[in-house]
Order: sequence, then C-alpha cells, then structure tokens
Amino acid sequence: MKTRAAVARKAGAPLSLETVELEGPREGEVLVEVKATGICHTDEFTLSGADPEGIFPAILGHEGAGVVVDVGRNVTTLKKGDHVIPLYTPECRQCEYCLSRKTNLCVAIRATQGKGVMPDGTSRFSSDGAPVYHYMGTSTFSNFTVLPEIALAKIRADAPFEKVCYIGCGVTTGIGAVINTAKVEAGARAVVFGLGGIGLNVVQGLRMVGAEQIVGVDLNPNRRALAEKFGMTHFVNPAEVQGDLVPYLVELTKGGADYTFECIGNVKVMRQALECAHRGWGKSIVIGVAGAGQEIATRPFQLVTGRVWMGTAFGGARGRTDVPRIVDWYMEGKLNIDDLITHVLPFEKINEGFDLMRRGESIRSVVVY
Amino acid sequence: MKTRAAVARKAGAPLSLETVELEGPREGEVLVEVKATGICHTDEFTLSGADPEGIFPAILGHEGAGVVVDVGRNVTTLKKGDHVIPLYTPECRQCEYCLSRKTNLCVAIRATQGKGVMPDGTSRFSSDGAPVYHYMGTSTFSNFTVLPEIALAKIRADAPFEKVCYIGCGVTTGIGAVINTAKVEAGARAVVFGLGGIGLNVVQGLRMVGAEQIVGVDLNPNRRALAEKFGMTHFVNPAEVQGDLVPYLVELTKGGADYTFECIGNVKVMRQALECAHRGWGKSIVIGVAGAGQEIATRPFQLVTGRVWMGTAFGGARGRTDVPRIVDWYMEGKLNIDDLITHVLPFEKINEGFDLMRRGESIRSVVVY
Repeated sequence: MKTRAAVARKAGAPLSLETVELEGPREGEVLVEVKATGICHTDEFTLSGADPEGIFPAILGHEGAGVVVDVGRNVTTLKKGDHVIPLYTPECRQCEYCLSRKTNLCVAIRATQGKGVMPDGTSRFSSDGAPVYHYMGTSTFSNFTVLPEIALAKIRADAPFEKVCYIGCGVTTGIGAVINTAKVEAGARAVVFGLGGIGLNVVQGLRMVGAEQIVGVDLNPNRRALAEKFGMTHFVNPAEVQGDLVPYLVELTKGGADYTFECIGNVKVMRQALECAHRGWGKSIVIGVAGAGQEIATRPFQLVTGRVWMGTAFGGARGRTDVPRIVDWYMEGKLNIDDLITHVLPFEKINEGFDLMRRGESIRSVVVY
Repeated sequence: MKTRAAVARKAGAPLSLETVELEGPREGEVLVEVKATGICHTDEFTLSGADPEGIFPAILGHEGAGVVVDVGRNVTTLKKGDHVIPLYTPECRQCEYCLSRKTNLCVAIRATQGKGVMPDGTSRFSSDGAPVYHYMGTSTFSNFTVLPEIALAKIRADAPFEKVCYIGCGVTTGIGAVINTAKVEAGARAVVFGLGGIGLNVVQGLRMVGAEQIVGVDLNPNRRALAEKFGMTHFVNPAEVQGDLVPYLVELTKGGADYTFECIGNVKVMRQALECAHRGWGKSIVIGVAGAGQEIATRPFQLVTGRVWMGTAFGGARGRTDVPRIVDWYMEGKLNIDDLITHVLPFEKINEGFDLMRRGESIRSVVVY
C-alpha cells in the first residue's frame, strides 16, 4: 500500500513530505493508522545529525496514537479497530529483562530496532524500490506504519488521539520517573531541573503522589506560571541566585531534596542535581539526554554519604502494562496533558512544528493526519 | 585518671606511647576500658597527614572493644561491666536522620566529633595541661577512653575482644554494604574490587546472603586463596586480562553483575565497577575512600540505561542496633573473623602494626592492651 510520510532524507534538512510504499504486516506485526503524533527533541536530535546512530533515509516520530488496521499471523492480543500507542520501548514479557521485574528495558527486538529495521531484518517502508528505514521501532511520522505486536499498548477507545499521543513519550517519561524510578512518597521534597515537556510532567507526577515541596529550576521565567499550574511550589531562576546554586537549593529544601530530577541533558546540571540531594538518602534521577561523549562527574564522597545517582528511560514504564493506566489517569482528570500541547498542526506543517520546538516556543507540538 | 595511650603528635611521625590524663565521664558519657583495637587504613590516612580534617595532637583508633568502667549522669542503657564496641557512627534514635529510617548517618554529635571534642565542646584527654583531641569520637588507641552513650553498642559478654573489635569498622562496613546498602538477594551475581580487609568482608557477606557468583578482582594473586575460603567463586587479576577489564567482567557475569563493590578507593576502579554492572538494574556501591579532591566520572547513558551508583559508610549499619547482631553472627560461626586478623600485637608494638599495614603484609593487625 501507499502512505503519506515525512521522510528524513538527510541530516540537517527539513523533512520531505512524500508518498512511500508500505508493505503489510508479517508474522507478529501490526499495521497501524497513525492519527496523531507529537514532535520530540529526540526526533530533532536525530534529524540534526547529532545522533551518532542516526540512519537515513528514515521515517522519524515515536510519540503517536492510532488505530489497528490489520494484523499479521500469530498476533493474538490486538485486532482491527483497537486503539493503540506505539512503544519505542517494547514489552515482550518473556526476555531476561522483562522477567527480571527490575527494569522496563525489554531487549526482545533491541538489535534490529537500533538498525532501523523490523525484527526479521527488513524494512516495511520503501521509495522507488529503495528501502526507507524505521526509527525507534515506531516511525509515527507516517500516516500508516507497521510495528511488532509487543511494541503497541492497547488503550481505551474514547481517549483523544491528539492528546494521548503525548503519553507515547514525554508524559510517561516524566510521570514514570517519579513513580517507577524514584518511587517518590507523599510528603517528599523534590527539585526539578528544566521545566520543559519532560520537567512539567515530572512536576505533575510529583503532585499526583503527594510531594510536599516541588521546586522548579529554569532560566526561562516564562515557564513559571505553567509550572505552578502543574503543581510547582517554588520557582528558582539560577540567574537570579546569589552565589552557588547547590547550597541555595539545599537550604530551600531544608537540608537537601529527597528527590531531584535532571530534565535538560546538561552534564553540569546533572552534577548540581546530585549534590543538592539530601545527605543520607537523596536520590537524583537523570532523565535528560546529554550530547555524545559528554560525562558526568562528582566527588565519590557525595555517594558515600548516602546520595544515589540513577537514571531512567521511558520513565521506567513497561509500555503495554503502564501506558494504558496513564491514559486512564488522563481521562479521569488526574493528569493535565491539554495545557502541555501548545500547538496542533496538520501533517503538512510538520516542519513548522520542528521550528517551533527549536525556537523554544512550544511545549509540545502535535501533528494530526 | 591516667591512661596509657598512643598519641599522634604530628603528621607523618610514629605514634608516641605516653601516659595521658583522662577526665571522667560527664552527663550522657561513658568511660570504657579498651581491651583490643584494630588498626585501619583510615587511622593511617589521618596519621600520614593526607586527611585535610586531621587534628593533632590526637588519639587515633576507631575499631575497638572493651568494658564499661563508669557512666556519667543520665546514662540509662549501659552500666559498669557491660561489654561494648565503640561507634564512630553513633545511633541516637532521635535525630532527623535516625528517624528517617533511610540512613545510618546519625547527626546527633556530628559537629563536635569532627572537631575532635566531646558533644559539650571539650576534650577529656590532656597532657601536661594541654588538650589532646579525640578522633572519630572513639580514640581506641588509649587503654581508657570516654564516649557518648549513643556511640557504644552493647554486645554479649562471651565475645572475644581481640576478634570482635574488628566489627567496629571493617567487618560491619563490608557485611553491611551487602545487606543494608545493596540489599543483595540470593542468586545474585557480584563483583568485588579489592580483596583487602573490606573486600573480604564483602565477599563473606555475599556468601552469607546466598549470592550465586562472587567475582573477586585484585592485582595481588596472593589474595586468591583466602578470598576463596571466604566464598569467592571467580578470581580476576586485571594484569592478566587481555583487553579492557569491563567487557571481560560483563561477559564473565553473563551480561553484567547485579551488584558491584569498590573496596579500594581508586576513582578509576569506581568507574569500572559502575560500568560492569548489569544494564537495567545493576547497582554499584562505592566503599573505598578516594584521595582528597578526586572525582568519579562516567557517561550519563550508564545511568539512563538503568545502572545505579551509590555508596556506603559503615555499611549502612545502625551501630547500636546492628553491631550486636553481627557479633552474634560471628559467635554462631556465620562469619569468619579469625582468618582476617593476621597479627595480634601488644600495645607497645602498635607502630609495628602500622608498618605491617603499609607494607601490605597484614589483612588486619589487632593491638591488645
């Protein structure tokens, strides 16, 4: 079949709106009509050429929502008409990682996913007979896409695609870092570095679990009002702090924060986040993705005196199990997604969405097909 | 009263065997006759002058066992004749830290302990009218010493002083890192870097909790036999490994260790310990004390993909609660301390004990009064 798609032909160039060939689902695969997709910094990271593992030509996009159109042989958990969210972190429930109960990093299709192909080693997309590669196993910048069954979360049918697509990455990453990785308890004090799309979801995750103090740190004072709406109790602009930021935050949190979250990808901020965590038990969670080759550093004394340095990918969420629950929470009004989606664009304006993100004007832009 | 003591008069010099003045216990304090004391690298660290917080003249020693001789006013949990182990990490059971249930780092007397004085701001030791300072709140290199009640663990009377004194630091640090900090479960795979006094206790802690694979890493092949006796299942000499050590250990542990322990104090080894931990859930625990100002570093990707970097002080043990249990385990034959105490010296030969440690000839030397 044919499908409209925004193809990343080469690094640094705008996406090319094309009609490409899409082969139907093979065994264990599912054909999905993507109804909406968010535009995330990770797509831009790859499109810019900064991603050392980026492959071209490819169809980017990993934050989508849609409807099952067809299923391949031996697909047992999904059927035509099911509403789904694609998962760049699958959940096979059978590999060593899934069975460990300690991580969400399913490895069932890891090797092929990183190479831009399906588990059988081939791409379903092509253009003029030449392969076009998948991306993060999802490729939601195509109106129709094929995914393995284990990389699709089935969600309720009344959830609006143009909102819950954001649960495919940013919402789950932020909320999940709080509930799955840090396991924040009621009454805790927390500091969130970076009040963008991830940081704001961390903030509302903290509010949801009953955190007592939620400090937001951002150089952009325009983020304050929205962050307060999401639950932030204290705003700190590092540019306005006299002296070092770390002791300032330690004092503000009465001895250090129980939990800190780095949502920027800046290795210097990651160090600050660790060091303003509470002596004895403070946990610092790295969420942001740093540039290639960059390193974090600290004095080991910070760890010996009880701070814990950890990280999270997709918020520690098991996609098929946890994503439907997060959709429920949104539908029940426990989570605010609407205010985070600042722009909704028709598919034809997808490159405009990238421009909005690059200029820092959007929290999240969503493209609808 | 007067007491024999080994006084650290200045950095870099041998301890001076003297008779010093000791004032009796004030309110909340206890006079202890030290029967035996271990010699630990931390004493040497301070004696050498490398400790930026070292104070002279002082009476070092923090790994002792003895008998209560007298108690001050309002001491309620100890009486004359009780057998005790001094605690450089006290347990007041009332401060924010003790009540947090998340850490053993009691802060009740932290400020004064670091300054070499008792909680009221004065020293009980003096020589020719001039104060001689306490060290780590314990000063077990004196035949008699005064400690706060909250810095003494009451132990059973049938435990031999010259053995269980080692529980005052090394044994508890190693065992505790396994059971309190890492919380290792049966069937786990672990790597222990450094098979000295701490590392060997980590090894036997791992055996005690049922770890399946216990890999010991040390440049000294002479440590192999003893480590195997303590439970090590695989020995790795980095000097004999072709290529990088980290991938070698990842392969040996079938994908990375569930838990790794750094027992040396080398920041480069701390990085190796983190990076050979298992993707998704491996925890790496820093135990060794690095030189002043040194830093650990890694790529944040190591954390984002699920490794956890943490540390431990006194093995996360609450001294008054946990130390008596560890004494019981030794008396019940669950722990081997005897083979770790390679030298027992009379008090007069304490400087010889430091020489044995410096030359790497002892695991632990114990001095008896």
